[in-house]
Amino acid sequence: MNYIDDSLMLHTDLYQINMAETYWYDNIHNRNAVFDLYFRQLPFGNGYGLYAGLERIIEYLQNFHFSETDLTYLKELGYQEDFLSYLRELRFTGSLKSMREGEVVFANEPIVRVEAPLAEAQLLETALLNIVNYQTLIATKASRIRQLVRNSPVMEFGTRRAQEMDAAVWGTRAAYIGGFNATSNVRAGKLFGIPVSGTHAHSMVQAYRDEYASFKKYAERHRDCVFLVDTYDTLNSGVPNAIKVAKELGNNIDFKGIRIDSGDLAYLSKEARRMLDAAGFTNTKIYVSNDLDEYTIASLQAQHAKIDVWGIGTKLITAYDQPALGAVYKLVSIEDEQGNMVDTIKLSGNPEKMTTPGKKKVYRIINRYNRHSEGDYLTLEEEEPEKEEEIMLFHPIHTYYKKMVSNFDAINLHQDIVVDGEIVYESPNLLHIQNYAVNQLQLFWDEYKRTNYPAEYPVDLSVKLWNSKMEHIETVKKQVGENQHR
Amino acid sequence: MNYIDDSLMLHTDLYQINMAETYWYDNIHNRNAVFDLYFRQLPFGNGYGLYAGLERIIEYLQNFHFSETDLTYLKELGYQEDFLSYLRELRFTGSLKSMREGEVVFANEPIVRVEAPLAEAQLLETALLNIVNYQTLIATKASRIRQLVRNSPVMEFGTRRAQEMDAAVWGTRAAYIGGFNATSNVRAGKLFGIPVSGTHAHSMVQAYRDEYASFKKYAERHRDCVFLVDTYDTLNSGVPNAIKVAKELGNNIDFKGIRIDSGDLAYLSKEARRMLDAAGFTNTKIYVSNDLDEYTIASLQAQHAKIDVWGIGTKLITAYDQPALGAVYKLVSIEDEQGNMVDTIKLSGNPEKMTTPGKKKVYRIINRYNRHSEGDYLTLEEEEPEKEEEIMLFHPIHTYYKKMVSNFDAINLHQDIVVDGEIVYESPNLLHIQNYAVNQLQLFWDEYKRTNYPAEYPVDLSVKLWNSKMEHIETVKKQVGENQHR
Repeated sequence: MNYIDDSLMLHTDLYQINMAETYWYDNIHNRNAVFDLYFRQLPFGNGYGLYAGLERIIEYLQNFHFSETDLTYLKELGYQEDFLSYLRELRFTGSLKSMREGEVVFANEPIVRVEAPLAEAQLLETALLNIVNYQTLIATKASRIRQLVRNSPVMEFGTRRAQEMDAAVWGTRAAYIGGFNATSNVRAGKLFGIPVSGTHAHSMVQAYRDEYASFKKYAERHRDCVFLVDTYDTLNSGVPNAIKVAKELGNNIDFKGIRIDSGDLAYLSKEARRMLDAAGFTNTKIYVSNDLDEYTIASLQAQHAKIDVWGIGTKLITAYDQPALGAVYKLVSIEDEQGNMVDTIKLSGNPEKMTTPGKKKVYRIINRYNRHSEGDYLTLEEEEPEKEEEIMLFHPIHTYYKKMVSNFDAINLHQDIVVDGEIVYESPNLLHIQNYAVNQLQLFWDEYKRTNYPAEYPVDLSVKLWNSKMEHIETVKKQVGENQHR
Repeated sequence: MNYIDDSLMLHTDLYQINMAETYWYDNIHNRNAVFDLYFRQLPFGNGYGLYAGLERIIEYLQNFHFSETDLTYLKELGYQEDFLSYLRELRFTGSLKSMREGEVVFANEPIVRVEAPLAEAQLLETALLNIVNYQTLIATKASRIRQLVRNSPVMEFGTRRAQEMDAAVWGTRAAYIGGFNATSNVRAGKLFGIPVSGTHAHSMVQAYRDEYASFKKYAERHRDCVFLVDTYDTLNSGVPNAIKVAKELGNNIDFKGIRIDSGDLAYLSKEARRMLDAAGFTNTKIYVSNDLDEYTIASLQAQHAKIDVWGIGTKLITAYDQPALGAVYKLVSIEDEQGNMVDTIKLSGNPEKMTTPGKKKVYRIINRYNRHSEGDYLTLEEEEPEKEEEIMLFHPIHTYYKKMVSNFDAINLHQDIVVDGEIVYESPNLLHIQNYAVNQLQLFWDEYKRTNYPAEYPVDLSVKLWNSKMEHIETVKKQVGENQHR
């Protein structure tokens, strides 16, 4: 890691560079190309996703140029000087549209759409996917947890178990977008303005070799005290020592809470609550942590555990039960020899991997009476559903499921982020993004949002787009059939 | 992310800084402290772990000082000028021992041991865990996959699904340590010298809107050709087009392989092999990818799939079936008021969270006759098993499982990395680390290494260490009992 000019341009798969090289030598590298970035399946069996990652994408695009050591390395790999000269001058000159961070997103709709010279668009792919896949996954997981804890504070504590450092900081930012209140990661606080939280660990109790002494020393230096009470024995030692110190320090401290990090959290929290209340500390909160996720939270709630503040580590920051989102980036339209745009499709041995051709828009169809969303509606670029009186929503596979919708607002979900190489978008601050997510979620019926077995939200194609897709499938199938008989 | 002096010093949990503050005001921040870093359970049900992360730890320690913007941010959080002055001058002055990267590691043995002034040792914790947990997890996963594929080439293709960027590059380095041959991530190639691999994606076929034309264009620019054959139809279009181009280009290209990325890999690989052989391309390899891991590899092998090269993405780079390793960092010894070192213990509501007190060494006990390892053997610092004729190995919980061992070599697994603040260790190159892992694994019987239901390898305590642990448990239990009656 000893490159002073280290860039993220090589944070890509080698095949992207080999394809760019092929295009460049064939002089088609500047043909206009449109790529859609989308995922095919929602994670965690959730009924919706929350999008995060745009901030990092913008950062990445701001620095989109090969450094000298990047080029030196590529030369070592055998790339020729003429192609390297092209790379040396390369900047992103295309356009990128994206949904807003905190947007509620669904499968098979383009979250990001890139329209750019073919080689440039190709070189972006890997980094864009790497960013969106992880951050969207964590924002979505955080949103599920937020639903379960309702209005209770919930903290992100996962840095030590995160998959390396970027995941820790960008993951906690995504968690904040999904509704978390604070993080233990100080760098994330510095970089993103997320509130930071934390008091002490077991090692402090061990360092003083006396739990009472350690709590007291901490309390002498810190007004806000949350004592970790399970170093030796939660109910026989930790809680009594915390109460003793709090009584001794009186108004000199704010005895905000105790934290329990192991053992039977349901039982211990109830007993600890009883002890705190009996000692008069009815406002002192009980914090818990220990491999929690939405399932253990639901179980603890069902047991009437007395928990006020939740600390979530491993299971959130790694998205433990599904640690990857499978977003893809697919070519949907390309300029031909004559300068016309031609839509493209990819078939596959796995039918769900089939793409939807064409440069597209994504609308959210809001019912004007109840202000709830009827579905998302993908159209070709030239369509304008906002000007139509009535549209038909139909299931793109089971097409007999359909409904006519009128009296709606059609909201185009894509924002201009980069236009012809120029960044035109200014990210809102993070609290604004968090609030945006909260407000957008209110557009959806509860049935789409429940954490278990949610109803399937409609993501439909316009008639024109659907017809176009079917025609492309037929055409390719015919070509493949001809091939077969060659 | 707009700090030019961005450092990793704040890549820590807030409580570490609050504890350091408490120690500093109480003037115990420079007391000598010993921390062990270890995990409690092997991941994936594997019988061993492979350690990775040391390189990144050394990098981190080389830059261990707070930047001005770090301090400004801490001031905003309310820390006082006197404490901040201490932090401004802080450098790591302690010592760190570690096993070598590529070492075969087991549960409950200190992989890293830090001995340093209390506050310094505390501030390292979060970053050290973050690094070791992820990289060791991936090296271990990679080693499992390497076992299954035996001598076949296996490539890391997971960047787009990695948990953000650091995971992609450090994860692929760990995969290389675990026995992978190459990566698609070009930046990892540049940074670490890992061989890079990759040819083209589906989008190239789509960009030319003609599979044959796209293969031909690629082949005109690249001598080494691996054609991706599943864009439209693997057997009816992809393989025939690849063969056609290869025949036309003849000796101008090296038709190294075809890649299949979807569909029924067992069936398709067998049919593709037949077609390639029939066309005379018996040396052309079949590459596959598509959510593979050690389980699908085993299944494909059982079906006699004709696969030569494996591309592994998501399931490796996220350690999909267990995306976190739970390594911890625990205080085991601390200087008291009189300057004597006193060993410490942490009990817990969960018995497996109990620590083993004392400054320790880890030995591997190698049988001189068969050159296989009898077990790992933890001792107190002052013990010297390498000078003993005979030692007793006994299970630390089921103590009646025991054996006497003589004619052994006792290998101290800890290397000096930092001594009194000075880095004294030079990392071997990555290929050397990979080979080291291969050689070390040969010290272990196959029963410990099989991927399913491996035998449990002994990690035992010396009699002195075991007795010391039991005494500490008794002492603390007595104190807690007294507390209870206060």
